[in-house]
Amino acid sequence: MTTQQLVNEIRKKKSFLCIGLDVDLNKIPQHLLQEEDPIFSFNKAIIDATHHLCVAYKPNTAFYEAYGIKGWKSLEKTINYLNEKHPEIFTIADAKRGDIGNTSTMYAKAFFEDLSFDSVTVAPYMGKDSVEPFLAFEDKHTIMLALTSNQGAFDFQTLTVNNQELYKEVLKTSKTWNNSENLMYVVGATKAEYLAEIRQIIPNNFLLVPGVGAQGGSLTEVCKYGMNDTIGLLINSSRGIIYASTKEDFAKAAAHKAEELQKQMQAIL
Amino acid sequence: MTTQQLVNEIRKKKSFLCIGLDVDLNKIPQHLLQEEDPIFSFNKAIIDATHHLCVAYKPNTAFYEAYGIKGWKSLEKTINYLNEKHPEIFTIADAKRGDIGNTSTMYAKAFFEDLSFDSVTVAPYMGKDSVEPFLAFEDKHTIMLALTSNQGAFDFQTLTVNNQELYKEVLKTSKTWNNSENLMYVVGATKAEYLAEIRQIIPNNFLLVPGVGAQGGSLTEVCKYGMNDTIGLLINSSRGIIYASTKEDFAKAAAHKAEELQKQMQAIL
Repeated sequence: MTTQQLVNEIRKKKSFLCIGLDVDLNKIPQHLLQEEDPIFSFNKAIIDATHHLCVAYKPNTAFYEAYGIKGWKSLEKTINYLNEKHPEIFTIADAKRGDIGNTSTMYAKAFFEDLSFDSVTVAPYMGKDSVEPFLAFEDKHTIMLALTSNQGAFDFQTLTVNNQELYKEVLKTSKTWNNSENLMYVVGATKAEYLAEIRQIIPNNFLLVPGVGAQGGSLTEVCKYGMNDTIGLLINSSRGIIYASTKEDFAKAAAHKAEELQKQMQAIL
Repeated sequence: MTTQQLVNEIRKKKSFLCIGLDVDLNKIPQHLLQEEDPIFSFNKAIIDATHHLCVAYKPNTAFYEAYGIKGWKSLEKTINYLNEKHPEIFTIADAKRGDIGNTSTMYAKAFFEDLSFDSVTVAPYMGKDSVEPFLAFEDKHTIMLALTSNQGAFDFQTLTVNNQELYKEVLKTSKTWNNSENLMYVVGATKAEYLAEIRQIIPNNFLLVPGVGAQGGSLTEVCKYGMNDTIGLLINSSRGIIYASTKEDFAKAAAHKAEELQKQMQAIL
């Protein structure tokens, strides 16, 4: 999917909501555990109920890998369902990968070719040759960690290097890489005031923003500082939407929560 | 596996060799492609021919994920084969994972419980709460990237923070984390001269050292600067061993290359 197609979809749906599909078998409605593939059944119900309210879905690979081959199958069924039923929706493999050159190419093949995701999240620590192999794929997007929403973000990401925080150095350096126009960045909503400075460094790239809702970030603040001419934001909510109810009405409850966010987004757009 | 068991095995075998199982279907002997599971057949042959010469095996997950569910099955068969036939051998899932707290726990479950690896590699960028969930598992080991062997290592890892290189800050900070005795570190052999200073910060932890051989690092130099009282080193070789021959004699050729390294290690011990 091209960036323009994503922007068009945002304008059409009046939404820049991304729903995180972080499915924990201990948290989903217990009646689903009788299904053959409870994770996929859960995802399918959430997708059927919310696809008109969001422009992206983001399964976090950890929640699938934890169940081994069975989990990987659920992930495959989920992405195939999305690509068949809703090819206009942007898909993110939240995998936070990164390795030396030829190994990153194998990860890129796993997510861009074998599973046909539109994008994958990557970690920056290993530098240019660990990220460029992902950037080489046409009409695919690489979403690099910049400033994350967890407490540990302050351990290294905000340390000063070259008279600025490390995450700013990461942003600036990554702009020089081959095909850097295929980069998006993860910036946590819990640090919305940082977004103004981030936008000075990367005015055009999309930002994937976790931490609105469950982790305490404010949608209005994020949009005030982070939005650009082409919107440039994907706001992710996972637990706040998918676990809105643990009863039989879970999909309806998820849609209700998603609609609340979509309405707020519509008012801002 | 405890660290002491690993040290005992090193002394017994007079080897601190780790063999990287980075299996690329384009590089293995083509006659294996007729097998039902060429990746596992390749790994089994390599393991059968080299297990007496090494103390660890390290499949890099990228090479398995690239083949989807089929690849994940090959990984599962490989780790099960190792745990059944050679439980004394240390196993490393080279996965370079890391995410916010509860998500890292899911990754830890994937590799420590579902697949029963002894250890997993992780990336430090997201800080303490992305790594501590791995450290909480008893008799399991978390191998954190410090200074990698690729060119991109110089993009961020060697930048100056708090009057020292970032990778040193990573080493120092990680020592304060809960269960930090379960940490090992990745330090590339191509920067052997850095090892003396690294040993001043972390005198006791094991180092996983890639880059000897194919990437140009010297075994003698690494041992001179990196070895400690309990050896404290695992030297990894992947391509240099497993692709020593692309013909029917590939396993024998791999054993020959592994033995060359083991003999050098024996001379040093």
